[in-house]
Amino acid sequence: MSGRILIIDSVATNRIILKVKLLSAQYEVTAVSNQLQAQAEMDHDRPDLIIVDLADRSEDRHAFCAALRDDLQTSDIAILGTGTANTAKARLAALDVGIKDVLPHPIDDAFLLARVRSLLRIKNVNSEIWVRDTAGRALGFEDEKRTFAHAAHVHLLTASTAVVPQIIRDTADSYSPNAQILPLDRHVPLGDPLASPDLYVIDTTGVRDPQDALFRLSADLRSRTATRLATQLVIVPDGATEVAAAALDLGADDVVMASVCKAEVGHRCEMLLQQKRKLDKFHTTVKDGLKAAVTDPLTGLYNRRYADPYLKALAEKTQQAGQEFAIMMIDIDHFKAVNDTHGHATGDAILRTLAARLRKNLRGIDLIARVGGEEFLVALPQSSRDMAELTADRLRKVVNGTPFDLRSDQAPLNITVSIGVAVGGAETVDQFNTDAVCLLADGALYAAKSAGRNQVSFAASAA
Amino acid sequence: MSGRILIIDSVATNRIILKVKLLSAQYEVTAVSNQLQAQAEMDHDRPDLIIVDLADRSEDRHAFCAALRDDLQTSDIAILGTGTANTAKARLAALDVGIKDVLPHPIDDAFLLARVRSLLRIKNVNSEIWVRDTAGRALGFEDEKRTFAHAAHVHLLTASTAVVPQIIRDTADSYSPNAQILPLDRHVPLGDPLASPDLYVIDTTGVRDPQDALFRLSADLRSRTATRLATQLVIVPDGATEVAAAALDLGADDVVMASVCKAEVGHRCEMLLQQKRKLDKFHTTVKDGLKAAVTDPLTGLYNRRYADPYLKALAEKTQQAGQEFAIMMIDIDHFKAVNDTHGHATGDAILRTLAARLRKNLRGIDLIARVGGEEFLVALPQSSRDMAELTADRLRKVVNGTPFDLRSDQAPLNITVSIGVAVGGAETVDQFNTDAVCLLADGALYAAKSAGRNQVSFAASAA
Repeated sequence: MSGRILIIDSVATNRIILKVKLLSAQYEVTAVSNQLQAQAEMDHDRPDLIIVDLADRSEDRHAFCAALRDDLQTSDIAILGTGTANTAKARLAALDVGIKDVLPHPIDDAFLLARVRSLLRIKNVNSEIWVRDTAGRALGFEDEKRTFAHAAHVHLLTASTAVVPQIIRDTADSYSPNAQILPLDRHVPLGDPLASPDLYVIDTTGVRDPQDALFRLSADLRSRTATRLATQLVIVPDGATEVAAAALDLGADDVVMASVCKAEVGHRCEMLLQQKRKLDKFHTTVKDGLKAAVTDPLTGLYNRRYADPYLKALAEKTQQAGQEFAIMMIDIDHFKAVNDTHGHATGDAILRTLAARLRKNLRGIDLIARVGGEEFLVALPQSSRDMAELTADRLRKVVNGTPFDLRSDQAPLNITVSIGVAVGGAETVDQFNTDAVCLLADGALYAAKSAGRNQVSFAASAA
Repeated sequence: MSGRILIIDSVATNRIILKVKLLSAQYEVTAVSNQLQAQAEMDHDRPDLIIVDLADRSEDRHAFCAALRDDLQTSDIAILGTGTANTAKARLAALDVGIKDVLPHPIDDAFLLARVRSLLRIKNVNSEIWVRDTAGRALGFEDEKRTFAHAAHVHLLTASTAVVPQIIRDTADSYSPNAQILPLDRHVPLGDPLASPDLYVIDTTGVRDPQDALFRLSADLRSRTATRLATQLVIVPDGATEVAAAALDLGADDVVMASVCKAEVGHRCEMLLQQKRKLDKFHTTVKDGLKAAVTDPLTGLYNRRYADPYLKALAEKTQQAGQEFAIMMIDIDHFKAVNDTHGHATGDAILRTLAARLRKNLRGIDLIARVGGEEFLVALPQSSRDMAELTADRLRKVVNGTPFDLRSDQAPLNITVSIGVAVGGAETVDQFNTDAVCLLADGALYAAKSAGRNQVSFAASAA
């Protein structure tokens, strides 16, 4: 349950003080004095967070952190730095090697713990993406370009849009024309095409009660569809560590003091946008993955995995409503011979064309799925035997009525289908068993084939 | 960007006051005086949230709300009640028809807005589930029982575990033995098997500064892996609407005053557990769905959709490391004849058995995928020609060395495979093009078939 934290500090007193603070906040803490020990510890048990002193010059801490960030096995471990001079240069150098923030000595307890909570929270979300990567990578891979294509949209919120601080103006400029500056208390743009930002830069300097303002704002941003997934960088007045801690605890993804240099704000913005893109990509991958799982890639129709539970739900609903439904099994006649004569590419083209013709001639509420090589299943909700017969006949005719003109160097092919139909829900409760109805339709299909193909046959018990 | 809110109130003054409050919080608001108008409004544009007065007796508000909850088209619209007597009975009656909370007149502005934000936030999460339902339903359908099987785990946090309020004890009892009472400030159980709760009931009565305590607690719960997805019900001291509003804004899913009856707390707990189960199920569905999308259901091996991007990533990594890799195409000899003679069921059994034999004889880092009816692709990272030859020969022998004993009523079948191998990354940069290497392996497979089957053939250019 606890987060696992590894402290690397060559000064024993620092190690002990930090360890005690974190232990009392109920984390699992290990402290070591050098990188060799740290590596041994990490091989044994991977930490969620590393706090490393940057003061010790006997080892190259920056190279160590950069290596952790660049190794896929450790790149999701958050790193905090301590002990370095709190200069712009030192801070930028740390950010450059993937360190999330630098805490100067003496460490502010409240801010330390808020930063730890925030980094662990963000890491949890990232880990979720990571776990799914095995499957997700395969699905999202090709889309990388698409999701990275759109320019970052940045909304900058400030107390007064009349006197905008320099850092806000500079940052807005660097994301122009996709950035806009809005008043903190009226942050919802009206009818705006840029309404769904990737990043909020929230300037709390000049706000009377920054904590209270952040409190309302963060609850509001999290509650609105267009803004809830945006990342947030909060700028707090210099020295206002309490506000900074509160901002992190309220869900800000990062926080900086107002006097930091433009480069640091820029760097932090870029890190947050990168995080946002990763999240966006993950959401796309999940959506595409779910779709791919239930779709036949060749024809774009649903597959058996989708059809089976769909039929069960249909039967249940139909039974409740006291209605009938029909199931058709459709099979292409002599498909093997076509494949053998004209090749697989032609066979695939026939399947695609046929699928499109069938789908075009069904209602929106009907289901069509490809359930075998050349076999299709059609489910017609709220359909009597007569309606099913009309539909089956229409489908048969849209196939045999127009030859399949697939290649310019080849004469159009005459294709026919055999169709078996069974009606469920009409007579007995057993007929709400879709497996049974499918079997009946299968039998009818077999009868249609035996009787010479290119025809529709009805299951006997439903006749 | 704004949430859409529909107000139903027969008293014009109430409607106007409420509308102004919500408009100034930047929501889209429509107000109507009766259910008929409400229905027309909803047909036109679906709201995210409905605020309905329960005082008007000329229409049956309860039946109206129950109908909205029971209709799949509207069941995700959150409903708040106003204007009724603030009695246990009236509140329970409202909860019973799916109303989330009842706000007595005069309505507390801060609490109203916090409740609105909270409901919109929860609805956003639910909508995400809903959008994916089309695909997800098919995938998660069969699992419904599994995810609903585990008993709810409830952690109850209170200021003092020495003097536990009655309502906390009662609630703990009703979830016994899967409930435990913990101190609010030491809420992380040590090495506990029940460490991952579904629901927190957080009692803030008896806490000196409840807002501050909730602030730290909620940030902490959201940051820990085991607790971040748990739902939260916060109990606040009677009349402490400010604390209640803060609790909601901090991410609590629901909030009640301390003096409410046991039935109401029980009802709210059940609603939150239902919400949690839905979320759990969604997460499982996503995970299963992603897996299903890249897996061949018959053999359990990866499919082409997984293999293609995997190969690209492999080639890239191999190129960076200056290594070689090998790709094999494996095809079952005379599979069509086996299928025709012994039937499809036997054919499927052969595919399954063969897949298992091949997989058992490959390393963990090797990839095996079923890429066609009887065709398998194997990728061997960090493999020279010699290593690939050894592996290919081993695979061939584990197939032809032991007949396939599939059915007790049938003699074991002798099955053989032909294998084509190509090594990538050895000589030219072109060989990092996995499509090209696959084509070479395909060509080698064809050569193995032509030369009499049951043998391994290497692509010429990699020889």
